[in-house]
Amino acid sequence: MRTRKALIDDIVIANRILASEGVCDAFGHVSVRNPDNPDTYFLSRARSPELIVAEDIMEFLLDGTPVGDDTRKPYLERYIHGGIYEKRPDVHAVIHSHSRSVIPFTITDVPLRPVVHSCATIGKSVPVWDAQDSFGDTNLLISTMEMGRDFAGVLADGRSALMRGHGSTVIGKSLREAVYTAVYLEVNALLQLQAHTLGPVKFLTDGEIERILSRLAHERPGEGYDRSWEYWSQRAGITTSSTAVDL
Amino acid sequence: MRTRKALIDDIVIANRILASEGVCDAFGHVSVRNPDNPDTYFLSRARSPELIVAEDIMEFLLDGTPVGDDTRKPYLERYIHGGIYEKRPDVHAVIHSHSRSVIPFTITDVPLRPVVHSCATIGKSVPVWDAQDSFGDTNLLISTMEMGRDFAGVLADGRSALMRGHGSTVIGKSLREAVYTAVYLEVNALLQLQAHTLGPVKFLTDGEIERILSRLAHERPGEGYDRSWEYWSQRAGITTSSTAVDL
Amino acid sequence: MRTRKALIDDIVIANRILASEGVCDAFGHVSVRNPDNPDTYFLSRARSPELIVAEDIMEFLLDGTPVGDDTRKPYLERYIHGGIYEKRPDVHAVIHSHSRSVIPFTITDVPLRPVVHSCATIGKSVPVWDAQDSFGDTNLLISTMEMGRDFAGVLADGRSALMRGHGSTVIGKSLREAVYTAVYLEVNALLQLQAHTLGPVKFLTDGEIERILSRLAHERPGEGYDRSWEYWSQRAGITTSSTAVDL
Amino acid sequence: MRTRKALIDDIVIANRILASEGVCDAFGHVSVRNPDNPDTYFLSRARSPELIVAEDIMEFLLDGTPVGDDTRKPYLERYIHGGIYEKRPDVHAVIHSHSRSVIPFTITDVPLRPVVHSCATIGKSVPVWDAQDSFGDTNLLISTMEMGRDFAGVLADGRSALMRGHGSTVIGKSLREAVYTAVYLEVNALLQLQAHTLGPVKFLTDGEIERILSRLAHERPGEGYDRSWEYWSQRAGITTSSTAVDL
Repeated sequence: MRTRKALIDDIVIANRILASEGVCDAFGHVSVRNPDNPDTYFLSRARSPELIVAEDIMEFLLDGTPVGDDTRKPYLERYIHGGIYEKRPDVHAVIHSHSRSVIPFTITDVPLRPVVHSCATIGKSVPVWDAQDSFGDTNLLISTMEMGRDFAGVLADGRSALMRGHGSTVIGKSLREAVYTAVYLEVNALLQLQAHTLGPVKFLTDGEIERILSRLAHERPGEGYDRSWEYWSQRAGITTSSTAVDL
Repeated sequence: MRTRKALIDDIVIANRILASEGVCDAFGHVSVRNPDNPDTYFLSRARSPELIVAEDIMEFLLDGTPVGDDTRKPYLERYIHGGIYEKRPDVHAVIHSHSRSVIPFTITDVPLRPVVHSCATIGKSVPVWDAQDSFGDTNLLISTMEMGRDFAGVLADGRSALMRGHGSTVIGKSLREAVYTAVYLEVNALLQLQAHTLGPVKFLTDGEIERILSRLAHERPGEGYDRSWEYWSQRAGITTSSTAVDL
Repeated sequence: MRTRKALIDDIVIANRILASEGVCDAFGHVSVRNPDNPDTYFLSRARSPELIVAEDIMEFLLDGTPVGDDTRKPYLERYIHGGIYEKRPDVHAVIHSHSRSVIPFTITDVPLRPVVHSCATIGKSVPVWDAQDSFGDTNLLISTMEMGRDFAGVLADGRSALMRGHGSTVIGKSLREAVYTAVYLEVNALLQLQAHTLGPVKFLTDGEIERILSRLAHERPGEGYDRSWEYWSQRAGITTSSTAVDL
Repeated sequence: MRTRKALIDDIVIANRILASEGVCDAFGHVSVRNPDNPDTYFLSRARSPELIVAEDIMEFLLDGTPVGDDTRKPYLERYIHGGIYEKRPDVHAVIHSHSRSVIPFTITDVPLRPVVHSCATIGKSVPVWDAQDSFGDTNLLISTMEMGRDFAGVLADGRSALMRGHGSTVIGKSLREAVYTAVYLEVNALLQLQAHTLGPVKFLTDGEIERILSRLAHERPGEGYDRSWEYWSQRAGITTSSTAVDL
């Protein structure tokens, strides 16, 4: 079993990867459910992902309350994470970002769906949550547990969901899976944007998506996630032993 | 109260950030109103933003005359700054650039408007100033106080304005706000360009924009501006103490 | 005659170039037929191209079996390489990638064809292989020799072929030719994507393509390939003597 | 008067800038007319622009013959340069490149024209030369003086011209002007590509272009060229004294 220190180091690496790969800029955040206590999760204090170090990681109850007497400033939108962990026991990592190419699909009526095999982990369908539907005019931020739960309801049993005029959120059974899906959600969006300028687009079939997900879950667990994690870590300038993968 | 030296250091940092983030190339300029004398402002001599150092910063009267016996060559277009400071006592920083993705909206009839929450600081509407309207054929540069005032009239009480076949200008209550808005004006333009290729675009509602601006002005003053400033400073390779923010 | 060590060094350089030029990310692979034994080829163990070192290169029979008692994990999709080497004795290098701009042409009905002289090596026509046609719903990976042969049948006597919802594969008489074609397949795709947004596109004529290929094969053998190889090696940070070219 | 050494250093800097700014890749070339002898020009031996050093620069007669007993391999397409210098005594620098965003305008019927003030130096109209018109099927390269003269005829008294399915060429009264125009031809093309996806495009008027060119030629000679040269030199990692400009 991995130590708490190793887990926190991995959260730092995930933040650095997401900054390096252009998924996060000054905004966006990454959490991991506490493997020793499913009722809490780890998440950095409010800071740009690229700058985060191990000491920045805080622990929260699912309702967003910091554990212990930690008075540092948390991310306002931590309710995205709590809302999902509360509803989805199968989820162990959550990433929220404003990844660029995804945004156009939040402000038009064109559905985002997998167009290439490497992007199948975003799920068969990617719903769009609109704060207007339940809350009317807001500042668009998910700033209460009520909003977090509303968003989790739209995510339902999916793997990713968009937020109108805001960004997107992906989940993972593991941190590496979530990082992989966050990067490839952006890739899928860019490819789909370009393809639509050419004409009608051929999406993956449901059967193809199922076979790809089955391979990643059972036949070759984590294979693509690990190879990507090693590669992205090196690109982010991280060379600690925790990025090594079993090749 | 901040010293003059700290203010000038911040102008240098702002120039470096705007170059690093691709808002400025060899052209573009950043000014700050003198906090000790609202009738003057600080602006670099004519130089590429990425190369500017503290010694390059000059002081100007609102009409564009250099203060003192400073004979160095100023930016020709400093009247953009003076025209706005003269008309808008609430403005403390001005940034003019040729930021790329914004340009297509200056040469077509498609209005640029906020599509994501992080871009609400560009304002509910972004007018386009066309030198042709008042001056006929020109070299498109704002090279007199008369032109600066004409442009300020089109900006009116807004937060940003475009210039046909030229570029754009943003204002801020503070330098950090202006830098934030300059970067996110470019982001909004790129996202909107992509979204239009998909179909009709959903803009933020006026109520949403008001709530976002209210939060930045009153509830969490400067929060997003400061987190971005710290992040962009690091990306620009600046690590002086003046980039630290209260987290 | 080149030594085996020099050949393997070149495979490493090719992997680094393809990563540096954005053709490969965590995925993609490069093989070279064994010049001393046409029934085997060299290919890295399963690893991200940017991280590959000489010790990672393995040797395979055309059917994908590792030569000797090498138990390291191979790429699942090595059958792309074997399928082509088996069918095409004229081919000495194969590159498979998920190069981005090419993908939209795999998921729409717009044919990819040479639009500029530097891209003529992709061939007069670029067929699209769809796993659905022969195999129905799959995970889209070419994971058996049967699939590899099916793909090679669609490539036929061509120089490159696309895979629906997946990526593309190019061949070369030499490694440098294959690397050149892999990079310029991506370039052609991006240029063609942009051109289609303007209106009807003028492709190279068959006669132009023939003259360009004739020059590269006979009149100035390898000229463009060598100049590019030297340039891309430097960009990838490689400065060993093996990148020097006869200018 | 500048020494020959200083002129050759400037050609090296121009090559590095064009590589650094993405105008040239492994291909493209820069020449300067000999200020002491209008019947010869300086141009590198056949090499990627980023790798060129002072020792690579050769001298050619206008017909493309190397001066002296220089047996190094020249660029095949040096006739582009000779053809222009022969026809246009006012031209002192020529740059040929495959700059990416420009290409779509060579393979469609949409004319490339200035859309922003900083791009006015490309000229009021930018003709497209098609090798097919005079020579039928070719390899598209300008490989004889006859072709060079044919291209110069299409350029006529212009400032830039496109080549169908190939690239573009710009001229300058000075090397700095040519470098500026080469970079901003690419900028104009990208902006125009994006603008066309939004709707009808407003180009600069002829009167505006004339005023901009008059300012650069007479009122503020070289101003924009020099500021850009200094900036681009720093980005290319060049810090020799020859990049300093009079600010």
